[in-house]
Formats: sequence, C-alpha cells, structure tokens
Amino acid sequence: MNMALKLAELGRGYTSPNPLVGAVVVKDGNVVGSGYHRAAGGPHAEICAIEEAGLKARGATLYVTLEPCNHVGRTPPCTEAILRSGIKRVVIGTRDPNPDVKGGGVEFLREHGIEVITGILEKDVKRQNEFFIKYVTTKQPFVILKSALTLDGSIATSTGDSKWISNSASREFVHRLRHAVDAVMVGIGTIRRDDPRLTTRLKDVDSSDPIRIILDTRLTISPDSKVLNLDSDSDTIIVTGSNIDRERLKRLKRPGIDFMTAAVKDGLIELSPLMSILGKRGITSLLIEGGSRVNGSAISAGIVDKIILFYAPRILGGNDGFPLFTGKGVLNIRDTIRVSDIRVHQFEDDLMIEGYLKGGHQQA
Amino acid sequence: MNMALKLAELGRGYTSPNPLVGAVVVKDGNVVGSGYHRAAGGPHAEICAIEEAGLKARGATLYVTLEPCNHVGRTPPCTEAILRSGIKRVVIGTRDPNPDVKGGGVEFLREHGIEVITGILEKDVKRQNEFFIKYVTTKQPFVILKSALTLDGSIATSTGDSKWISNSASREFVHRLRHAVDAVMVGIGTIRRDDPRLTTRLKDVDSSDPIRIILDTRLTISPDSKVLNLDSDSDTIIVTGSNIDRERLKRLKRPGIDFMTAAVKDGLIELSPLMSILGKRGITSLLIEGGSRVNGSAISAGIVDKIILFYAPRILGGNDGFPLFTGKGVLNIRDTIRVSDIRVHQFEDDLMIEGYLKGGHQQA
Repeated sequence: MNMALKLAELGRGYTSPNPLVGAVVVKDGNVVGSGYHRAAGGPHAEICAIEEAGLKARGATLYVTLEPCNHVGRTPPCTEAILRSGIKRVVIGTRDPNPDVKGGGVEFLREHGIEVITGILEKDVKRQNEFFIKYVTTKQPFVILKSALTLDGSIATSTGDSKWISNSASREFVHRLRHAVDAVMVGIGTIRRDDPRLTTRLKDVDSSDPIRIILDTRLTISPDSKVLNLDSDSDTIIVTGSNIDRERLKRLKRPGIDFMTAAVKDGLIELSPLMSILGKRGITSLLIEGGSRVNGSAISAGIVDKIILFYAPRILGGNDGFPLFTGKGVLNIRDTIRVSDIRVHQFEDDLMIEGYLKGGHQQA
Repeated sequence: MNMALKLAELGRGYTSPNPLVGAVVVKDGNVVGSGYHRAAGGPHAEICAIEEAGLKARGATLYVTLEPCNHVGRTPPCTEAILRSGIKRVVIGTRDPNPDVKGGGVEFLREHGIEVITGILEKDVKRQNEFFIKYVTTKQPFVILKSALTLDGSIATSTGDSKWISNSASREFVHRLRHAVDAVMVGIGTIRRDDPRLTTRLKDVDSSDPIRIILDTRLTISPDSKVLNLDSDSDTIIVTGSNIDRERLKRLKRPGIDFMTAAVKDGLIELSPLMSILGKRGITSLLIEGGSRVNGSAISAGIVDKIILFYAPRILGGNDGFPLFTGKGVLNIRDTIRVSDIRVHQFEDDLMIEGYLKGGHQQA
C-alpha cells in the first residue's frame, strides 16, 4: 500500500477534479503490475496495474489506495475489470468518499467471491486526497492559506517590503503548491505592491499553472499588471463587486482574462459565497497567497482548511509591519482557533509549519 | 568528552558565576574517575575526577571540558593537582575564555611534559557555557528573551489574556530556564496584568529561584503583588527612574526587596546601561519574560543574545492582539535582525524555536 501511495503521488497536479490513486498487483510476494491515475479522463490506476500484470493477475492481490469504481464514468467500471482479471483479493486504502457516487465497489466485489480488506493506511490516503474529499463532500474547494513571516509575525515591513522573507528553498516549495492546486488567490493590494505572476515555475517538472483569482472589489487593477499579460495555459479571474466602471472593464477584456462579480461587505469580497461559486466552476483546491487583508478576510469567513506558514530566521523588531491577518482577533486565548495535526519541515534555515483548521472564527 | 559535557550539565543552575565544567579520567579504555563542578566555591571538576581515580590516575588521560585553572582562586590551581596525580595526557574542550585570568594552564602542563590536546567538541562546550563566556568577556549578563506566541504572532489577546498560550510541557521548560539563570526580568505591565511569582517550580530538582527584576519607572507596583510577598531565597529588585514618590518607596521597603534607580528615556528604563549595572552586581545571565513593551525595548536596545519562542498551535485571527515587540521595526527585509543557529524542539503540540542574535537593531 505504501508503494501504491507513492505511485498515486506522481499524479499530483494533473488529476483534478479526480482523486490521486495508485495501485499495485502482487503475486507470490512479487509486484507483477503497478499504475497510477495520471490525468482526468485517462485510465484509472487499477486498470493500468491489471493490464501490466496481464495473465499474472490471476490469483493475485490488488492493492489500491481508493475503492475501485463500480459505475460508468468517463471510463468503464473498474470492478468488472478486476473480476475479469482473475484477481482474488483486493486491499483498499479508503472507501470512495464521494456521496454522489453510488459506490458499492466493495460490495460488488464481495458478492462475486473476492476477498476485500479496507482501511489500510487510511489516514495517509485521506490526507493525500484531502482536496478531493473536501470537494466531493462540500462542493467547495479545499483552501490552503500560505504565508511567509518573520519570527515576530510580520509578513512585510511598514513600507510593504516582503522580498524575500523566506529563502529560495521555501519559495520553490510554494511553486510545488501552485502546481498541486487548481487555483491561487490574492487581493488587489498584493498585485499593486508586488505585481506577481502567480505562475508555477519548476525546473524538474512539466508543471501546470493554477487559475489566478484576483479580488478587486472596485476594479482598480492596472492593465499593465503581470497577471493580465501572461503566456499561461490557465486563466486569470478578476472578482469584483457589482459597482464598477464598465468602460474600464471593457478596456481590460482580453483572451484568458475572466471577470466575475460577487457579494461585497465592508468593501471586501465575501469569501464564503465565493467558495461556492468557485466550487461550481470545478475548482477543487485553492491556495491563498494574500496579504493581511485577504488573509484576515479568509480566516474570519472560516473558509481556511489548512495553513502553511514559513517562518524565516528574521526579526522585524517592532509592531508596525504587516500582520498575518488584519481584523479583530478573539478576546480569550481559550477561544483561539486551534490548529491540529501540526507538522514541521525545515527548508535550510526556514521553518515551515503546516496544520489543519476545523472551521474558522465561528466554530472556534 | 561527551560524558564530561553531560556531567558538567548537572551543575546547571548552581555554579554561577563560575562555568559548568565536567571531567573524566580514563585509563586503558576504562573510566576510573569522573566529576563536575557542583557549585561556586566547591571543588573543581578535575579535582573530583582525579580524587575518585586515586592511584589509577597514574598514566591516565584526563578529559575536561574547560582548560584547567593555573591560578589560586577560591581553590588551589588544578594544574598542580594534575601533575601530582601522574596523569600523562589532558584533553580539553576549550581554552579558558576569561580574559582576566592569566590562563596558561595548557602551557604549564606542556612545560611539565604532559601531552595536551585542545578544541575537542569545542562548539558544544562553548554553547554550554554561553552565559559564562558572555559575562567574563563583556561584564554583562547573557540575555535570553523568551515568549509564547500564537502562530499569527500575538503574545496576548486585545484584552491582555495570555493564559495559557503555551502548554504545560512548554511552561515546565520555562521553569528549567528560570532555574538555570541568575535573574528574570519583566515590566510593571506584566506584574499588573498577570501578577506572576517568577519563582522556579520544578518537581524533580532542588531548584533555585532567580533574582526577580521588575522595571517600574514611576514605582506604581501594588504592595500586594506576589513578587513583593514571596518566600524565596532570592531577592526582588525594583528598578525605577529617579522621579518617584519617596513616601511610597518607604512603604514598599521590606526584607528581600531591593530598589535601584536607572536612566529613563521616553518613560522606559534604558536597558543597555542597566545591563552593565546588573553585570557589576554579579548577574551573569538574565531571562526576559516581558510583555510587548519590555521586549520591544530590549530588542531595540540590542541587548538580546538569544531568543526562545514558543509557538502554540493557535490562531488569534486578527491584528489587535499584543505583539511580541512594540516599537518601530526595520523598513526593509534585508535589514531585519538575523537569527542564527536556529534549533527547533517540540513540546507536545507546541514548537519552540531558539536562536542567537548578533546584536540588535543597531548592528542589523
């Protein structure tokens, strides 16, 4: 199953809206076939593994990270292929979490005399597919809030300087995140101050650019901004309020740039309803790379599922820098938002802390 | 030498103003004697180890973390005891860093035909004695700034609530720090808000309380404050400006409470000259457990040698909490204060980050 997990990981960044799946066929202690889901529309992991095994699949065990499908989607059901192959035992990481799919893969296989074991390395499989699971169960994207801070908690100096708090190893990891997610989101403040491209730039991978979502309530973005003038496979979406300059909108229109209006409160795009809109658009995962305002707005809307914070070995030495979140914090320590399943990684002398939020302010 | 280092560590909290020293006598691959410096005025580590070895010291090797003394202090010179014991080889962690001492232990031993090797595990020995080295080379205490923060960098909520950001394992470590240092320092704000005792409370150790230093420019401390009403072996020192209510001072006087006046700037005690005063008083190490103002004052005065920050898995979710430092930060990221030799420890789900500062703002 560990091998299947690792194989599944190779699909990272290419399978959305499908999950990451890996499969291995083992006979007499030897791997006779393996595969992973490479891209949406392409063959499922089980099929690749079974085909590679060929006649050796007869009497073998199939290890697969996710429950094999029992329905006709873009591809025929995997359960039937398993039956035909002569596999006699199937070991599954986790059941299909999709409530819209009439699962039943496990039951179908058992009815046909195949031994089925479920829940092997389930926690790892679920973590690997956290984007997919959140999306299919809520129709909203899995939201990661990422930021780089000084040890005293500032994301920029009082002048707005943030280049570069984190080191190049940390920044490369951020490009891996961009590759993995469907979309990234920033506010107009970040566009104005840093003018980022928000593309994925990795040397060793055929990487995919995320959709770029820019929150710009009053449509003040400069036509010269890099995000409006990119050579990228993915679109840039400008999210505005409804009260904007229509002439300006016309002048900004160009191929690859989408515009979307959303509800506004206190001058800021309301993020909770926006997540439903993005979900409907098929965005299963979103990386927020915002400044203090967008971050504050996201945390208070309770939309953040996971935080990834890079702490650089630097001290600003005052309280006039840009904070991670603007807005009102909780009044008592016992009401702070708890971050669970904390993990720490070291990127040279930067520390990365990742963890999960269970709801935001409201639930805290 | 590793064993000598570990032995030396047993003296932590008891040897000030002396260094931590451990010693091991090895003959034919066997440890025949060992010892450490237990307390100022007590025998040196080498002497303990040699005495334990007795006649077996003849022809043996002595491992000692610090260069043996060659002068008469509170105890006779160790170098002569080494000669008398018949030891033929001495392995030393680091040379005596004290510029006031006419060292020469290494030279004396060599002149008398003993083989001497220096610089073994030197980095570890120096780190172990960082308090001592700073103090003997600068006559100022080694200063540690310790704080507990939320992941978004607040040390308290907007209402001043900070109980408890960090978990009990982290707080126990803070008691070990208090045991290790000569003094702790807080501002009157912390006394007013939290009314801490600032004593060392450890179950497994015969612990020593640090001297408590309270920065209280205008002498507004309440006579009922816990730090003024303790049963403790150590004194509380109230540091004030010169413009204070003399009647109030009289009423606050009691055994175990000292008063000290110091220079004031913008309503705050000037910390740089205060460090020299504390150094003259024999305080070799100081733990700052302050709030935002004292921390900000310390970082901008450039007196901090080391930071120890506990990050709890909590998010405040706004920018209205108390920051780690009040005051003006640097304007550019390249001018931030660098923290070197970062180490991370995990106390259950709290993370502790420790690192060294090379000067504060001024040198940054």
